[in-house]
Amino acid sequence: MNKINTDPIFEKGHKAEGKYGKNFTGQVWLKTLVEQNGEWNCTIGNVTFEPGCRNNWHKHPGGQILLVTGGRGWFQEWSKEAREIYPGDVVKIPADTKHWHGAVKNCCLTHLYVTTNVNKGPTEWMEPVSEETYNKLK
Amino acid sequence: MNKINTDPIFEKGHKAEGKYGKNFTGQVWLKTLVEQNGEWNCTIGNVTFEPGCRNNWHKHPGGQILLVTGGRGWFQEWSKEAREIYPGDVVKIPADTKHWHGAVKNCCLTHLYVTTNVNKGPTEWMEPVSEETYNKLK
Repeated sequence: MNKINTDPIFEKGHKAEGKYGKNFTGQVWLKTLVEQNGEWNCTIGNVTFEPGCRNNWHKHPGGQILLVTGGRGWFQEWSKEAREIYPGDVVKIPADTKHWHGAVKNCCLTHLYVTTNVNKGPTEWMEPVSEETYNKLK
Repeated sequence: MNKINTDPIFEKGHKAEGKYGKNFTGQVWLKTLVEQNGEWNCTIGNVTFEPGCRNNWHKHPGGQILLVTGGRGWFQEWSKEAREIYPGDVVKIPADTKHWHGAVKNCCLTHLYVTTNVNKGPTEWMEPVSEETYNKLK
């Protein structure tokens, strides 16, 4: 399914600012679709990374699934090679796995996230992905 | 976000047959994206209903979220009015809520599902949506 699709399906939301924005390098848009409330024990949202934007290294205590709907990006687990991600890709992130994701340099990335088992605690945010690490990707 | 989008993003999968097919009226395509394995305590998949196709009335003991990515369809909870659903819509189905979903008569419907809290047990399938009920929708 490796086509480039930048057509939005789900609401784009707002530009991240304040406490959310500090976990990103570059500009990101966030829209929460399912809030944490206990009924579904997950949160779901839509994320759009502008070209070059990525989140900091981080971990989810209950795991997360990414469902890529538009653009082109990168996903990397700690101590593994980064891999390109495209619309139609499903990224399965086990609990407590250090990782980051974001757009390529010349294209946005849009994905849904499903953060699972949210009763296990909040996302643990860590250091930014360095310019050196990001600029090596191709 | 009420545009008509029939362009597939996620894998379409296979035509449902056997034990899954019996829970549908008409032709449906299913692709499991995240299988039940305990790690994420949810299952995720892609469903494409051909025009006129719908599933039987059913309940999820742990709830479910639908994320509509293409086409046009119907969603109805027991004892409530059916409502049209479109790409970009997010349908939140609480645990043990009797409901059905499917395509309109003249267009496919494609949605992702996130079936949550799957440790609470399997989907409970019930009677088909009658021709009378379905044909009244407009």
